[in-house]
Amino acid sequence: MKFSSKIEKCSQSPIRKFYPYQVEANKRGVKIYHLNIGQPDIATPPAYFDAVRNFRLPVLAYAPSPGIPEMIGAVRKYYAGIGIEYGANEVFITTGGSEALSIALNCILDDGDEIIVPEPFYPNYNTFVSATGATIRPIHTTAEEGYHYASREKIEPLINERTRALLFTNPGNPTGTVLSPEELRLMADLAKEHGLFLIGDEVYREFVYGGEKLASIGEFDDIRENAIIIDSVSKRFSACGARIGTLITRNRELQQHALKICQARLSVATLDQVASAALYDAGTEYFNDVRDEYRCRRDTIYRKLTEIPGVVCKEPKGAFYVMAKLPVDDTDAFQKWLLTDFSDNNETVMYAPGAGFYATPDMGRDEVRLAYVLNCRDLERAMDLLALAIKQYNALKK
Amino acid sequence: MKFSSKIEKCSQSPIRKFYPYQVEANKRGVKIYHLNIGQPDIATPPAYFDAVRNFRLPVLAYAPSPGIPEMIGAVRKYYAGIGIEYGANEVFITTGGSEALSIALNCILDDGDEIIVPEPFYPNYNTFVSATGATIRPIHTTAEEGYHYASREKIEPLINERTRALLFTNPGNPTGTVLSPEELRLMADLAKEHGLFLIGDEVYREFVYGGEKLASIGEFDDIRENAIIIDSVSKRFSACGARIGTLITRNRELQQHALKICQARLSVATLDQVASAALYDAGTEYFNDVRDEYRCRRDTIYRKLTEIPGVVCKEPKGAFYVMAKLPVDDTDAFQKWLLTDFSDNNETVMYAPGAGFYATPDMGRDEVRLAYVLNCRDLERAMDLLALAIKQYNALKK
Repeated sequence: MKFSSKIEKCSQSPIRKFYPYQVEANKRGVKIYHLNIGQPDIATPPAYFDAVRNFRLPVLAYAPSPGIPEMIGAVRKYYAGIGIEYGANEVFITTGGSEALSIALNCILDDGDEIIVPEPFYPNYNTFVSATGATIRPIHTTAEEGYHYASREKIEPLINERTRALLFTNPGNPTGTVLSPEELRLMADLAKEHGLFLIGDEVYREFVYGGEKLASIGEFDDIRENAIIIDSVSKRFSACGARIGTLITRNRELQQHALKICQARLSVATLDQVASAALYDAGTEYFNDVRDEYRCRRDTIYRKLTEIPGVVCKEPKGAFYVMAKLPVDDTDAFQKWLLTDFSDNNETVMYAPGAGFYATPDMGRDEVRLAYVLNCRDLERAMDLLALAIKQYNALKK
Repeated sequence: MKFSSKIEKCSQSPIRKFYPYQVEANKRGVKIYHLNIGQPDIATPPAYFDAVRNFRLPVLAYAPSPGIPEMIGAVRKYYAGIGIEYGANEVFITTGGSEALSIALNCILDDGDEIIVPEPFYPNYNTFVSATGATIRPIHTTAEEGYHYASREKIEPLINERTRALLFTNPGNPTGTVLSPEELRLMADLAKEHGLFLIGDEVYREFVYGGEKLASIGEFDDIRENAIIIDSVSKRFSACGARIGTLITRNRELQQHALKICQARLSVATLDQVASAALYDAGTEYFNDVRDEYRCRRDTIYRKLTEIPGVVCKEPKGAFYVMAKLPVDDTDAFQKWLLTDFSDNNETVMYAPGAGFYATPDMGRDEVRLAYVLNCRDLERAMDLLALAIKQYNALKK
């Protein structure tokens, strides 16, 4: 039987493909330091579980399709706190940031259309874009430049009559790159001048370590029709399993189209919306401690990484990832070896190999993404394991 | 700015379009009997809320992409109970039956493809199919025949080289039609003979009132590659707000494709999966009482409906809907009048106008779908209001 040509073009997650080797290593009793997935170890604020326990309606009914008023209200209040006022009709609650992005792309992309995305990028963008029949046109970046992409010279040559949107994660996954105010303004200018949607995936907004103010493309009044914000409670409140995200747009026509999809899928989980609204009440103080913890982790992993001979990496400014070039020829093969052949004191390490974050073939083969979602002591040990493994692996290859 | 041609073809929900008039009627103090939406009033089993209150992990983490083992296990046990053994890799937990259907359609439909669906059908099928670039080819049915569609003569002429699948809701929404074992077998035969996927939306499986055994297209071993089952806890356990559904397929290639989409959207809400698994433990006895209650409601609404002169309607055998022809020229205009002009003792009634359930233009304009999700006394009153309103409306029109 025949399958969709669009799904045939998609791949399974490159981040999860070493799972079978991981299972085998676990069976042999090997301890793995997981730097491969962005699942924070930080506790979810108790406000979430309190709200869930206090839910007192006898029927767990459908929520309104655009979201429950309490959750929409919580998001509006949060944005008002960073100086951006949104109306209730401009905010849609979604099943994670993933659904927010999927809805936005389904509304704006057609077969043959193009969307410009800096590479390396979050691999799931590929699947969401492919499902619409459109393709990603990547902006090339380099480890040496800290993966910066917000440059008129790099982006303008990629725009053509099929280009519909610019999509970027800021702070960046997988790179940890944070745009300066001038770079963010440039992205807005490019969208405005060329009549493109500007999709800002801003789920890591709070994760900035240089004292930067919390930034959003929603700040720019002159791109009200262009800006689409993807947001989520997942990383902000270490509540990935709530699957509560947000799609924000002031574009009336886009609101109407998004509402069609929201209505077709009926609603977002009721209890998770009630509990996520409570997170926003409890959020600000909680977040300062979290940021301090991640800053310490960032400093630790960056220091240890740059001590490894041959590593190329600029200090990441945000999110909880660092992308780096390793002195090995193929980080896919190296990861497999780390799980099947290497161990030190019965321990090894996992990362996400770089190639899966690129649309361009053969790019990123000597790169890795490391998620610093472990405590500082574990991160030190994981980096020591990585350094030792690189040495052994390259000695073997000679 | 340009939007997707696919989203331009979709409409907002026909079931929700009278919402502004409803708000106005409420403001005037008019009580509305809601027969327009399929939101049951039956209490969700306490097992759900108990499980949620007992959740004790500090981090609300991502669940595995195909679902948590407890929930997959609960679904497998439930199906084993109706004589169908599924492997763990054949069951995917989804965000409601809606996502299960959306994933299946995205895997199998391409631009220009066709999918055969009996009309009247659940209107959201339109949006999910349109998003893939395919179109619905409807099987015509009539109120006089109780909306039966499982006929070789009706279906085979609709199959062509672009046909990829047959999709049907059994028991039926909006019609309440339940296929006989022979009719179900015929659907399987047609899928098998023509190499089509057979998508059974079976979320109302338990809601049958004539002592029928619980049926599924999963029973037929000779369509293992063709059968795709859409299921959900929403109606079964009156837990619509949990947004927990299931996609089931034995087709290995489809499993691989479905997994790509499951991985891209990361996971389904963790707490709702834990709690929904607990529903299945508590389920069987709960359901016998629920079925008795709905049977009484079905009997009540059908008796009262057929007492109204000029109504055409066969006794519905399942789900909690009845589709009927009313003796008015346009049920859209009539619904508006019911909200803006009619009231009796300050009460009125809402239904879902029929046209929105048809793909064929101008079909269903004198039909309505009534959801019998109220208790029997309220249903009696709602039907009295409908009878009185029809009389007054037609007198005005003369």
